[in-house]
Amino acid sequence: MIKFGLFGAGRIGSIHGNNTRLHRDAELVALHDPVEKNSARLAAELGCEQWTAERIFASDAIDAVLICSATDTHAGLIEQAVDSGKHVFCEKPIDLSLPRVRQCCQRVAASDIRAMVAFNRRFDPNFRRLREQLDAGAVGELEMLGIVSRDPAPPPIEYVRVSGGLFRDMMIHDFDMARYLLGEEIIAVSAQASCLVDPAIGEAGDVDTAVVTLTTTSGKLAQISNSRRASYGYDQRIEIHGSAGMLEARNVNENTVVSHTRDGVTGAKPMYFFLERYAAAYRRELDEFIRSLQGEPVDLPGMEDGLQAMLLAEAALQSLAQGRCVKPGGDD
Amino acid sequence: MIKFGLFGAGRIGSIHGNNTRLHRDAELVALHDPVEKNSARLAAELGCEQWTAERIFASDAIDAVLICSATDTHAGLIEQAVDSGKHVFCEKPIDLSLPRVRQCCQRVAASDIRAMVAFNRRFDPNFRRLREQLDAGAVGELEMLGIVSRDPAPPPIEYVRVSGGLFRDMMIHDFDMARYLLGEEIIAVSAQASCLVDPAIGEAGDVDTAVVTLTTTSGKLAQISNSRRASYGYDQRIEIHGSAGMLEARNVNENTVVSHTRDGVTGAKPMYFFLERYAAAYRRELDEFIRSLQGEPVDLPGMEDGLQAMLLAEAALQSLAQGRCVKPGGDD
Amino acid sequence: MIKFGLFGAGRIGSIHGNNTRLHRDAELVALHDPVEKNSARLAAELGCEQWTAERIFASDAIDAVLICSATDTHAGLIEQAVDSGKHVFCEKPIDLSLPRVRQCCQRVAASDIRAMVAFNRRFDPNFRRLREQLDAGAVGELEMLGIVSRDPAPPPIEYVRVSGGLFRDMMIHDFDMARYLLGEEIIAVSAQASCLVDPAIGEAGDVDTAVVTLTTTSGKLAQISNSRRASYGYDQRIEIHGSAGMLEARNVNENTVVSHTRDGVTGAKPMYFFLERYAAAYRRELDEFIRSLQGEPVDLPGMEDGLQAMLLAEAALQSLAQGRCVKPGGDD
Amino acid sequence: MIKFGLFGAGRIGSIHGNNTRLHRDAELVALHDPVEKNSARLAAELGCEQWTAERIFASDAIDAVLICSATDTHAGLIEQAVDSGKHVFCEKPIDLSLPRVRQCCQRVAASDIRAMVAFNRRFDPNFRRLREQLDAGAVGELEMLGIVSRDPAPPPIEYVRVSGGLFRDMMIHDFDMARYLLGEEIIAVSAQASCLVDPAIGEAGDVDTAVVTLTTTSGKLAQISNSRRASYGYDQRIEIHGSAGMLEARNVNENTVVSHTRDGVTGAKPMYFFLERYAAAYRRELDEFIRSLQGEPVDLPGMEDGLQAMLLAEAALQSLAQGRCVKPGGDD
Repeated sequence: MIKFGLFGAGRIGSIHGNNTRLHRDAELVALHDPVEKNSARLAAELGCEQWTAERIFASDAIDAVLICSATDTHAGLIEQAVDSGKHVFCEKPIDLSLPRVRQCCQRVAASDIRAMVAFNRRFDPNFRRLREQLDAGAVGELEMLGIVSRDPAPPPIEYVRVSGGLFRDMMIHDFDMARYLLGEEIIAVSAQASCLVDPAIGEAGDVDTAVVTLTTTSGKLAQISNSRRASYGYDQRIEIHGSAGMLEARNVNENTVVSHTRDGVTGAKPMYFFLERYAAAYRRELDEFIRSLQGEPVDLPGMEDGLQAMLLAEAALQSLAQGRCVKPGGDD
Repeated sequence: MIKFGLFGAGRIGSIHGNNTRLHRDAELVALHDPVEKNSARLAAELGCEQWTAERIFASDAIDAVLICSATDTHAGLIEQAVDSGKHVFCEKPIDLSLPRVRQCCQRVAASDIRAMVAFNRRFDPNFRRLREQLDAGAVGELEMLGIVSRDPAPPPIEYVRVSGGLFRDMMIHDFDMARYLLGEEIIAVSAQASCLVDPAIGEAGDVDTAVVTLTTTSGKLAQISNSRRASYGYDQRIEIHGSAGMLEARNVNENTVVSHTRDGVTGAKPMYFFLERYAAAYRRELDEFIRSLQGEPVDLPGMEDGLQAMLLAEAALQSLAQGRCVKPGGDD
Repeated sequence: MIKFGLFGAGRIGSIHGNNTRLHRDAELVALHDPVEKNSARLAAELGCEQWTAERIFASDAIDAVLICSATDTHAGLIEQAVDSGKHVFCEKPIDLSLPRVRQCCQRVAASDIRAMVAFNRRFDPNFRRLREQLDAGAVGELEMLGIVSRDPAPPPIEYVRVSGGLFRDMMIHDFDMARYLLGEEIIAVSAQASCLVDPAIGEAGDVDTAVVTLTTTSGKLAQISNSRRASYGYDQRIEIHGSAGMLEARNVNENTVVSHTRDGVTGAKPMYFFLERYAAAYRRELDEFIRSLQGEPVDLPGMEDGLQAMLLAEAALQSLAQGRCVKPGGDD
Repeated sequence: MIKFGLFGAGRIGSIHGNNTRLHRDAELVALHDPVEKNSARLAAELGCEQWTAERIFASDAIDAVLICSATDTHAGLIEQAVDSGKHVFCEKPIDLSLPRVRQCCQRVAASDIRAMVAFNRRFDPNFRRLREQLDAGAVGELEMLGIVSRDPAPPPIEYVRVSGGLFRDMMIHDFDMARYLLGEEIIAVSAQASCLVDPAIGEAGDVDTAVVTLTTTSGKLAQISNSRRASYGYDQRIEIHGSAGMLEARNVNENTVVSHTRDGVTGAKPMYFFLERYAAAYRRELDEFIRSLQGEPVDLPGMEDGLQAMLLAEAALQSLAQGRCVKPGGDD
C-alpha cells in the first residue's frame, strides 16, 4: 500500500485524488491547498485529512506526493520531497525557468527518490498501442511523425498570461510525445506560429496557432500542429509514416452512433476535452507510478524527460523569433 | 444512501457488487452465495459481510437486493423480496417457465416494491444515444430495425444445456432491445435457425445461429441476427431505417489505432465480450436503479418487460418448430 | 469485333448502348425502339442506325442483341434471337409470368446461342471482390448473409402498377445476389412486408418495405432488407458472417470529404442511384459478355439464374400471403 | 469542336489523348513524338495521324496543343504555340529554369492564346468538393492546412537525376494545391528533408522524404509532407483546420470491402498511383480546358500558377540549404 499526500485541490488534483482513492494499492492520507475552501471541499469528497505542507513532508505516514498545485510551486515542492525522501508524481511543467528545471533535475538525480513527470499522453491506451505496434515493427522504421493536438477552446486570458505560452504550456505534451516515439536525439527545431483565434492572446504576447518541425540525427522528421481552438472537440491524433507502412491513432469519439440523412453521414465528435479523453490515461499513469514504487520494471517519464521537453519548447520559441532552425539545448 | 444485499458471487455478481461499492449513494451491506468459497472471496474483495438469505431479507439494514444468482433461484428470491419489502434489481431472465414468470409479475404488481429486470443494453451509452436521436426525430418514423448480436465464442456445453436455449438465453436481449426501439406491439414473430457452430449444441437440443423477423401492428419490421461465435469479437450493432434517414450504433472497438500496409488498412476489433463492451452500461443501470429508488422519474425495464421478452422468445421457438409466423402471447 | 443490335432506347438502353460504343471489341450497328423520338435521339447520340426488329434479327451484320426494351417484350425477343441465332444480353426479368420464363429457358437451352440475364450487381467491383475473398476462404464457411438494398425514392406509381411488385422487380436483384453468394440450394423462404412509404403503392397492390429470410440445405441463413425509399441515397450493402470472420461490402459514397464541426463528423452520402453506383458494373457486364462470346471461360448469369431468382420472388409472395415458410419452386 | 494536336506519346500523353478521343467536343487530329515506335503505337490506338511538330503548329486544322512531351521541350513548344496562335494545355513544369519560366509567362501574357498548366489535382472531385465547402464557409476561415502526398514507390533513379529534384518535381503539386486553398500570398517557406528511402537518391543529390511549412501574409500556416515511398499505396490527403471546424479529403480506396477477423478490421488500401487515383481529374481538366476555349467562365490554373509553384519550390530548396525561413520570389 502506497500512502500519498496530495498538493493542489484543483481540477487535476481532484482527478489524481479520486484515482488514488479508487486504487487498491494506494491510500490518500492527506491533501494541502492554500485555498481553504478548495482544500476542504476536496478533502470531504475524498475522505482524507487536510494537512500543512510541512506536516505532509514530515510525516512517516506518507510515501509519495502528488504535485498538482500551481506551476510556480512545483520546483519547490520537488526539492522538499527530495529533502524528506518522498517519491514524486509531478504535473508538468517542472518550472517555467530552465535553470530552475536543471537545478531540480540535479537534486533529484543525486537523491534516492523516484520522480515522475506526469506526461499523461504516454499512458493513453491508444498511444500506448501505437508505440507497441511501432516497436513491434508493424510499419518498419519510423521516417515521419505527425502530431495534431488542438484544444476545443482557449483557456482564460489570465491563464494564458502566466502559462509560459503555447510552446511551454501546450505543445510541451507534443514535444514529449515526439521524443517518446522518435526514439532519437532531436537536432533541429523550426517553428511558425500566429495569433488567429483571439487577438487578446496576441496582446498577452502569446500565439494560439502553431506548427513545429523537428529533425533527428538520422533525419527522421516530425510535424506538430497546435491550435487553441477546435470547434469540433479535442483533436488528438498521431500518425507515423514508416518504411513499411503507416500507423495512426485516431480521435476517440463521444459515441458510435452514425446518422445517415439527406445531409450526409454524420458520426459523433471527438470527446470534448482532456478530462474525458484522457480519463483512462490518468488512471494508468497513477497505476504505473505505484507499480514502479512497488519495484516493477516500469518505464516512466522522469525529470530528464521534463527537461528535454522544455528544451524543445525553448528552441521553438527561439526559432520563431529568429526565423531559422535551432538546435535544442544550445544555449539558455 | 441505498443499502444493498447481493445474491450471487459469480461474474455478474462481482460486477454489480463492485459498482455498488464505487457508487456514492450506495452501500453494499452483505452478500450471499451458496458456494462458500466464492462467497468468501467476493466478500473480501468488496469489503462486505456474508449473510444468509434469510438474514438479508429480514434485516432493516437492507433496502434492496441485487439478484445475480443462478437462473432457477430468481423467481423465488423475487417473491421473498416482495414478502420482505425489499426492492429488486434482477438479472434476466425472471425464470425459464412462463407461468412462473407471470406469477412473479403479478406478485410484484400487487406489492409496493420496485423491481427492475436488468436488461443492460438499454443503458449502453451508444444505444441510449441511438434511442434519443430516434425519439428526437433524427430519422423520422422507424420503419425497419436491424439488430446484430453475436457472441465471440459459445458458452460451455454444460451451460447451453441449462440455459433455456439461444432464444431465451441470448436473443432475449435483442427481443427487449427491439421492444425498446419499436415502441409498438409486436404481432408476428418468424424464426429460422441452424446449428452451424458446434454439433454438440445441436445434440443438446439447441441452435447456435438464428435469425428472427418481427412485425408490429403498424407494419414496422425488425430483423435480428444471432450467432454464438464471431471470431472477430463481440458484435453488437443496431440499425434503424426511418422515413427520413438511417441511424446506426456501430461496434465499440478496442482502440483507435489503424495500420496501413501493403495488406490493407487495419483497425482494432470490437471489444471482446460483454464485460468490456457493457462496462459503462452496468454502471449506468445500477445508477438509474438507485436514482429511481431516490424518487427520480427514471424509465426502468420492469417485470412486464421481462415477461414480454420471454413471450417473444417462446413465439420464436414455436415459429421455428412450425415453420410459420406466430403471434406472441397467443398461448402458453 | 462483336456486332450488336440494341432493343430499347430508354435509360438502360442508353447505358448499354454507350458502353458498347466505347468498347474496343464491340460495334453497335443498329437500334430499335417503337417510340420514334427516343429511337432517333439515341441513334444520333450513339452514331448508329435505326432498324426494325425484323431487320436486326435478319441481318448477318448482327452477332448479338441487347434487350433493354419494356419487360413484356423480353421473352418474345429472346425467342426471336433463338430463332435467328443471335446471342442475347437481356435485362431482368425474363418475364413476369413464370410459365413463360420456363418456356424461354427451354428454348434457349435447346439452342446454340449464349444468353445472359444482366444481373448487374454480380459485376460490381466491390461485390466481386467480396465474392473473391469469400471464395478464398477469408472468413471460412459462410453461415449468415445480410443484404440491404434500398432505393433512394420509389418509382412512379404507373411503373409500380406494371412492375410485378417489389419482390419480382426490386428484390429479384437480392435473390440473385443471395444465390451468387450462398452457393447452395435455397429450401425455405419467409417474407414479411408492409406499405409504409406511400399508401398509393399499397393501393396498387404492392408493398414498399420488405424483409425476407432464406434458408439453404445445410442451414445457412440469409436476411434481405428492402425499402423503396432511403432518403440518404442508394443503400447497397452486403454482409457475410462466416465461421472465421465477417466480410462487408459497404456503400460507395459520393466523395471522400469529411467535415468536423460542432454538429459532428460528416461525410458524403452514398451515390444517389444505380446509374452512378453501378456504372462500373454495367461496363464490366458488357465486357464479360463480349469476352464470353470471344471464347473466354467467363462465368455469366444465364437464363437459369433468371428463372431461379423468379422462383424465389414467387415463394416470397406466397410466404407473405400465407404467413409461413415456403419451399421455392414447389408449385406455380 | 476543339481540334487538338498532341505532343508526347508516353503515359501521360496516352491519358490525355484517350480523354480527347472520348470527349464529345474534342477531336484529336494528330500527334507527334520523336520516338517513332511510341508515336506509331499511340496514333494507332487513338486513330489519329502522326505529324511533325512544324505541321501541327502550321495547320489550320489545329486549335490547341496538348504538351505531354519531355520537360525540357515544354517551354519551346509553348513559345511555338504562342507564335502560331494555338492554345496550350501543358503538363507541369513549364521548365526547370526559373528565368525560362518567367520568359514563357511573359510571352503568353503578351499573346492572345489561352495557356493552362495542368495541375491535375485541382480537378479531382474530392479536392474540388473540399474547396467548394471551404468557399461556402463550412469551417469558417482557413487557419491551418495539412497536405500529405506520398508516392507508392520512388521513380527510376535515371528519372530522379533529371527531375529537378523532389521539390520541383513532386512537391510542386502540393505547392500549387496550397496556393489553391490558402487563397493568400505566401511569405515564408521553411523546409526540412532527408534521404531515408534509397541512398541512391541521396547520391543523385536529391531527397526522398521532405516536409515544408508555409506562412501567408495573415498568418495562415500550411504543412506539407512528402515521401517517395508509401508501401500502402498512393497517399493523397488534405486537411483544413478552420475557425469553425475541420475539413478533410481522405484517400480514395480500391474498394469498399472490409473484413473482420481475429487479426482486426481490414479495409482496402488507397488506389495504387496517379493513373487510377486521378483518372477522373484528368478527364475533368481536359473538359474544363475545352469549356474555357468555348467561352465558358472556367477558372483554370495558368502560366502564373506554374511560375508561383516553381518559386515555392525554389524557396524550399534555399530554406533547406540555409536552415532558415525564406521569402519566395526574393531572388533567383
